[in-house]
Amino acid sequence: MTREPLLLTPGPTLVPETVREALGRPMVHHRTPEFQAVLKEVGQDLKQLFGTREEALILTSSGTGAMEAAVTGLLSPGEKALVIRGGKFGERWAEICQAYGIQVVPLDVPWGEPLDLGQLTALLKAHADVRAVLTTLCETSTGVLFPIREIREAIGKAGPLLVVDAISGLGADELQMDAWGVDAVVCGSQKGLMLPPGLAFAALSPRAWEAVARSKTSGYYFSLKRARKAWEKTDTPFTPAISLIVGLREALKTILAEGVAESCRRHQADAAYTRQQVKKLGWTLFVDGPHASSAVTSIRVPEGVDGKGVLKRLRARGIFLAGGQGELTGKIFRIASMGAVTRAHIDTALTALAEELKTASEAVRHG
Amino acid sequence: MTREPLLLTPGPTLVPETVREALGRPMVHHRTPEFQAVLKEVGQDLKQLFGTREEALILTSSGTGAMEAAVTGLLSPGEKALVIRGGKFGERWAEICQAYGIQVVPLDVPWGEPLDLGQLTALLKAHADVRAVLTTLCETSTGVLFPIREIREAIGKAGPLLVVDAISGLGADELQMDAWGVDAVVCGSQKGLMLPPGLAFAALSPRAWEAVARSKTSGYYFSLKRARKAWEKTDTPFTPAISLIVGLREALKTILAEGVAESCRRHQADAAYTRQQVKKLGWTLFVDGPHASSAVTSIRVPEGVDGKGVLKRLRARGIFLAGGQGELTGKIFRIASMGAVTRAHIDTALTALAEELKTASEAVRHG
Repeated sequence: MTREPLLLTPGPTLVPETVREALGRPMVHHRTPEFQAVLKEVGQDLKQLFGTREEALILTSSGTGAMEAAVTGLLSPGEKALVIRGGKFGERWAEICQAYGIQVVPLDVPWGEPLDLGQLTALLKAHADVRAVLTTLCETSTGVLFPIREIREAIGKAGPLLVVDAISGLGADELQMDAWGVDAVVCGSQKGLMLPPGLAFAALSPRAWEAVARSKTSGYYFSLKRARKAWEKTDTPFTPAISLIVGLREALKTILAEGVAESCRRHQADAAYTRQQVKKLGWTLFVDGPHASSAVTSIRVPEGVDGKGVLKRLRARGIFLAGGQGELTGKIFRIASMGAVTRAHIDTALTALAEELKTASEAVRHG
Repeated sequence: MTREPLLLTPGPTLVPETVREALGRPMVHHRTPEFQAVLKEVGQDLKQLFGTREEALILTSSGTGAMEAAVTGLLSPGEKALVIRGGKFGERWAEICQAYGIQVVPLDVPWGEPLDLGQLTALLKAHADVRAVLTTLCETSTGVLFPIREIREAIGKAGPLLVVDAISGLGADELQMDAWGVDAVVCGSQKGLMLPPGLAFAALSPRAWEAVARSKTSGYYFSLKRARKAWEKTDTPFTPAISLIVGLREALKTILAEGVAESCRRHQADAAYTRQQVKKLGWTLFVDGPHASSAVTSIRVPEGVDGKGVLKRLRARGIFLAGGQGELTGKIFRIASMGAVTRAHIDTALTALAEELKTASEAVRHG
């Protein structure tokens, strides 16, 4: 393929040319004053992105690694975590807990539906010994945005720790860690941050750091204690993904030049525009209304249409959308608006999708 | 700095331009037939590099992640592992075991010295319940090469599993996984593979896979079971570091065009040349003889010389060597010959080191 692939998948997303140039620079050593300057700069910028005064630690892994670091850092075997499961990534929180012997109190939200805050309050009342509530900002598998501020209010300030997977949401859906009283936020590089995958991030509140000091869970590579100790000396415990961090500096520069709040407003407008166009085209949104994420939009695959085939034909045209995962396999299309995606990209994708759906529908009618 | 840094550190190493170009290409999605073709190709090439018929799995992490995957995959809490500790990375094996409640039977080799095989045999006799022997191919912190084939012979074919950290050695020091009867080999991307850090690899023997089926250790991200299951469908369990895998394809092409055996022979000759030049220059090698690695050469810092200061001045000239770690801090210089390093690079580094040592020695004499 000669043309750049139009990547409107909810991760990985388009990587801007300034970032790509940085990724291909000659290698530098990580234990040098020059690289420490980069770490300091990205550290400051990440704080702004997370909306926190605390440090945002950098891990070399996919976003799941940061989720594991949060679970193993904050909880101990036998302790209880309430997990909001409204999609594949909510389920992932539960799987990680189970892998480490942490008891899961599930709050199952039908995929695509908004969270029932009353149900959360009732569950917390029934399980007074829950140590942490694990949730997702944008549930990438469905396109649902979970109301983090409202969840904190429902939990109460002195309640369990609030841990948020903002892997795909950060930079697109608003999240103010300190102001909203979030105790742990994890993020990945290949979504709103417009980088290739390979980096993950975790920021913790002072209350969460106290929990880390108490945790008895095993773990080595994903130890937040070890990461924090190294970070205090502007270092990482293990060799970091140097080229991605050099690229991260460029990506964060771009995001902060626009401003985090402005970036979220733009994403919100772009996602609203996408939903509006989808409705104009006569398709059905899988998620609509205030619980629709600004990072990714989900559209129902029309009855009788081979969704996978449509995605394949789009791919042959250099346009990459995602299908459904888990129980939504073959049932939805997902279009990301996060990161470097513009309205022109969205228009191109929707036009192409309309053409392919027309062909597919005709095949259904004549088939 | 306008000139490319001359990176002769034992990781990260120089990244060739063909690889850097691949790293900066437009992002592609990992769950596409196009990327699966890349995974298949690098999978085949990795097998050749490891000298195995088994699959070499790809993890997104530093090399330490693959070490953790091996420990948690092969052993269960309470079981015994014999750890050959002759430097910082041997110590890391022990630390990971301890983090997961695995009993460590240490075999401490003085840093820089060769392994005493008789000591290994005696320890194994005294601890008949050892389930695995964990060792290092090239102990990067000292420059010592451990005799993997002889270790296997000492253990016996039916003996404990033999697990080798070949993170810095692979591609420079010979390692034939299948022929030598090694049960698990782990590797990292930023050493002999001439890539930025961020990828790790693990290959297991059929006997090791049986152990994985039995292991009761916790873990999620570094689960070899999960990685293998995904790999069977030409996939990874979590989003992989896509750009690094695209770069990996280029790096492996280069290595296999030369041939693994030929690459090892070249590295051996280059390391021997380095040691010869070091002696000609009147300095003392920290490791010499058959237990000197072909990946990295260690030189004693002359009496009274500020080793850190010398490295700093070399750095200002764009030449990056490493100092000692742990108990060797300030006591040695380390020059890597692995990956894309040429004799011309080695000559440049040694000439510059000679100049800086002359200045430093004069300062000592006149100080």
